[in-house]
Amino acid sequence: MRRWNGWADESRHPTLPPSALRLIEAELGPGRPTSDAVLADVVAAVPASRLQPNSLISLDPEDRVRHATGQSLPDWIALRSGRLRSVPDGVARPATNDDVRALLAWAGSSGAKVVPYGGGTSVVGGIGGAGWGNSRHPTTHQPILTIALERLARLRTLNERSGLATFGAGTTGPDLEEALRPHGLTLGHFPQSFERSTLGGWVVTRSAGQQSLGFGRIEALFAGGRVEAPAGTFELPPHPASAAGPDLRQLVLGSEGRLGVLTEATVRVVPRPAREAFPAWFLPDWSHAIDAGRAIGRAGLPLSMIRVLTPLETATLLALAGESRSMGLLRRYLGFRKMGPETSLLLVGASGTDRLVEAAVREVGPLVRREGGVAVGGSIGRRWIANRFRSADLRDALWEAGYALDTLETAIDWSRLPALAAAVERALSAGLEDLGERVLAFSHLSHVYPSGSSLYTTYAFRSTADPDETLARWRRLKGAASRAIVDAGGTITHQHGVGRDHAEYLVAEKGELGMAVLADLAHRFDPDGIMNPGVLLRGEP
Amino acid sequence: MRRWNGWADESRHPTLPPSALRLIEAELGPGRPTSDAVLADVVAAVPASRLQPNSLISLDPEDRVRHATGQSLPDWIALRSGRLRSVPDGVARPATNDDVRALLAWAGSSGAKVVPYGGGTSVVGGIGGAGWGNSRHPTTHQPILTIALERLARLRTLNERSGLATFGAGTTGPDLEEALRPHGLTLGHFPQSFERSTLGGWVVTRSAGQQSLGFGRIEALFAGGRVEAPAGTFELPPHPASAAGPDLRQLVLGSEGRLGVLTEATVRVVPRPAREAFPAWFLPDWSHAIDAGRAIGRAGLPLSMIRVLTPLETATLLALAGESRSMGLLRRYLGFRKMGPETSLLLVGASGTDRLVEAAVREVGPLVRREGGVAVGGSIGRRWIANRFRSADLRDALWEAGYALDTLETAIDWSRLPALAAAVERALSAGLEDLGERVLAFSHLSHVYPSGSSLYTTYAFRSTADPDETLARWRRLKGAASRAIVDAGGTITHQHGVGRDHAEYLVAEKGELGMAVLADLAHRFDPDGIMNPGVLLRGEP
Repeated sequence: MRRWNGWADESRHPTLPPSALRLIEAELGPGRPTSDAVLADVVAAVPASRLQPNSLISLDPEDRVRHATGQSLPDWIALRSGRLRSVPDGVARPATNDDVRALLAWAGSSGAKVVPYGGGTSVVGGIGGAGWGNSRHPTTHQPILTIALERLARLRTLNERSGLATFGAGTTGPDLEEALRPHGLTLGHFPQSFERSTLGGWVVTRSAGQQSLGFGRIEALFAGGRVEAPAGTFELPPHPASAAGPDLRQLVLGSEGRLGVLTEATVRVVPRPAREAFPAWFLPDWSHAIDAGRAIGRAGLPLSMIRVLTPLETATLLALAGESRSMGLLRRYLGFRKMGPETSLLLVGASGTDRLVEAAVREVGPLVRREGGVAVGGSIGRRWIANRFRSADLRDALWEAGYALDTLETAIDWSRLPALAAAVERALSAGLEDLGERVLAFSHLSHVYPSGSSLYTTYAFRSTADPDETLARWRRLKGAASRAIVDAGGTITHQHGVGRDHAEYLVAEKGELGMAVLADLAHRFDPDGIMNPGVLLRGEP
Repeated sequence: MRRWNGWADESRHPTLPPSALRLIEAELGPGRPTSDAVLADVVAAVPASRLQPNSLISLDPEDRVRHATGQSLPDWIALRSGRLRSVPDGVARPATNDDVRALLAWAGSSGAKVVPYGGGTSVVGGIGGAGWGNSRHPTTHQPILTIALERLARLRTLNERSGLATFGAGTTGPDLEEALRPHGLTLGHFPQSFERSTLGGWVVTRSAGQQSLGFGRIEALFAGGRVEAPAGTFELPPHPASAAGPDLRQLVLGSEGRLGVLTEATVRVVPRPAREAFPAWFLPDWSHAIDAGRAIGRAGLPLSMIRVLTPLETATLLALAGESRSMGLLRRYLGFRKMGPETSLLLVGASGTDRLVEAAVREVGPLVRREGGVAVGGSIGRRWIANRFRSADLRDALWEAGYALDTLETAIDWSRLPALAAAVERALSAGLEDLGERVLAFSHLSHVYPSGSSLYTTYAFRSTADPDETLARWRRLKGAASRAIVDAGGTITHQHGVGRDHAEYLVAEKGELGMAVLADLAHRFDPDGIMNPGVLLRGEP
């Protein structure tokens, strides 16, 4: 079971290797661990539910606490300090589409708001309910009904000839791949949250898996599905492509629970690749690394992944890898090849037949060498693949050492990327200067496109004994970075979604007319505005 | 200059090879050519414009006739017979976004409806104005202002580092590629209408170029742009990807002029491929050919095109190729390899570096051989490429020989494709049986996807001296085929758009809630409902 106030399983006890702890202490000063609230105390303090008993709904206080938040940093601070401003009044676990319709009707007639809950992994405040997670917004006066989708979680139909698989929207990543494996099939969608997040969550937040370059973002994989909305049932047929007017799938994608509950999704699945390779190169510096990533991205090669790390993230990755013999050899080799402290790692993935994987990787070599790159083989890539879902656990370990860690991300065209990356890191690094606190910020390009790239930035700062002060520090950093992104012309989110944390920046991308379209859309599906309040759109139309 | 009442240039005089004419005569009986109306007579009959003079607007009757229709079969019958039910009251040629805004404001205050005009190549009645092209709907009582985009037709900015090119929306295919060529770049979007259709038209109708498998459908190429709408200016930033809520680009894509005038579009352009190859195979029959196309489509190979022809379309293609020596050799070779009258052609395209093209094509071979396929090299593919924009000219030649020709298309998943193809061809072939008239119908898969395929069907029947009777025959055939498509679960259009001809079938795909969303959207951009009346959405909200 997942710990109630963190990311990792209760059975896992993530620790930082000494080399990583030394690095972070050197950057930020010693951490001052705070003590966590105890679950039993938090549960005991939960107010009485305002909902009438209903056979489909659990009113159990612990259940309600465990569904109160996602995994944003404000959520974490609330959980770790035990200062949850609100918890849902009940948690429903529908087993059928009919159950969902009945719950929506019941909520409508009870004056309750409805919050859909998939894996609970939103890092942007995507789990609705005004006032949760120490938000500045007032607590809602209406009761909140959370609809958890964990029982809508199996393979419903598989059309093997077409490669179309229909799953309940609450299916988690591992369960989804497990159901496809006996058929030799895969979805190939592997976000970092893969182990906990759900298909429905991926769809409504426009998730990008780590190998989206090859398998496609969830927008490409989501063929159709079914939304139960207050205004009725909305079905999307799984055509392979269509020119029949605007694509309404693209309105469900990114709708973040505001339209209704996505109960099932049909996805395009493909044969499992015969081979995968993840070769790595080191580049002399960040600028050459960007140029290499851009050259590969623009070459249109059949790759599944291109990742490019800043020097500081490269150093951090090497520090996290610890002091093994093979890491010592790698460092000596990099020194021999004159790769200094500015060296930047570039990691590529290829999936397919032996011949195609080999051909694709052979095309990459000259493009990297032209930028001064040095090949280091497949061991770094194998280590990365082995740990790719576990690195989020480090957030628990860092918190327990006295450091708060958050990530943010954007995307922009190639020509504006270097300035954007510098502006974001500068906004974060200098964000707490007047408090005499330093911030560690480093970035990588996680998704490279022909016309530009995503930028994914990790930042850490010291938490304090006062959760309000820790939250205030986060607000300043998040605000400064978000403004830097919008000012530089980036999207406010490439892969995490909008939630509450990005809602105020959405207008910069959509414009006033676009925001009005989104409000019209929400109103059409949900005329009384009961769905996932406070998320995506700030107010009601 | 394009002929006023057909497809081909006035300088081109398309003719049918004798072998093709024999085939069609054998199938349909001898054609009875009808005589065309004369342009001068049609122009002389044009009613006076109902618009006030305006320096931006031409009221010239010939100008108005030349912008009265697209290229649908009802449009053709109207043009060839000279029985245009209505022509626009004026044709504006704005040179700037400001001009467009001024024209929209002027139209709004004049009580005029507005029809955007790109290349005039819609084959589904996409050029608005109720009552045109012998539609059953009554003529509008308001004057119609056509906004032709031919002066918004150049490369505005090129961001070479990012591969982002911003063009005026009226740029035609050849002008667009010509502007990119000196930079070593291409958009790679080659619909059959390439020589005449425009970037803006591609975007608002969700066009699929012939090599979309490699370069992407226009949905993937359209990064952002600008719509001038009655309600204001709507701008879409060209992010490489975004998770910031529903994707509003996808509402402009497919909007068919109902939201406003798309004045400029930013597209993702890529380096011109070093090499292209178009190898061909023959399969024993249609069923094996489908299986081969499916196997290739599901293998995720880096190909730019997969086309699969029914036996009848294969025979027609061979007949159209005439009686050259190389065709004789091919026929003898196919006989030697025991490919009989049921043989089906499969054509594949690959674009990229030498190594990747070779690797991709080598992966195709075993998949085709498993279905009994026989490779015939690159000559058929080269011939196809050389003629790919000219085959539409044959419609002129057939008309002049007394035959009406139309095409329709859909897409569906692999498991339902064979039944859909059979149902469509049956609906067409038997559609005029009670009149004692035969119909020639044949199909190919033009766009193959991992989960399914498009189906593109060509059909021909004899025209009559009475244009109303020819139109009535078309209505019966189009209706029967459209119902067959919808009943079998296909999309009503994979690549041509909705226009007037498909509007009544759209609800089958979008549902009532979806249709309400589209009406809300149109109302938000165009509150008074002046844009492109009768197209996409049947009535006003």
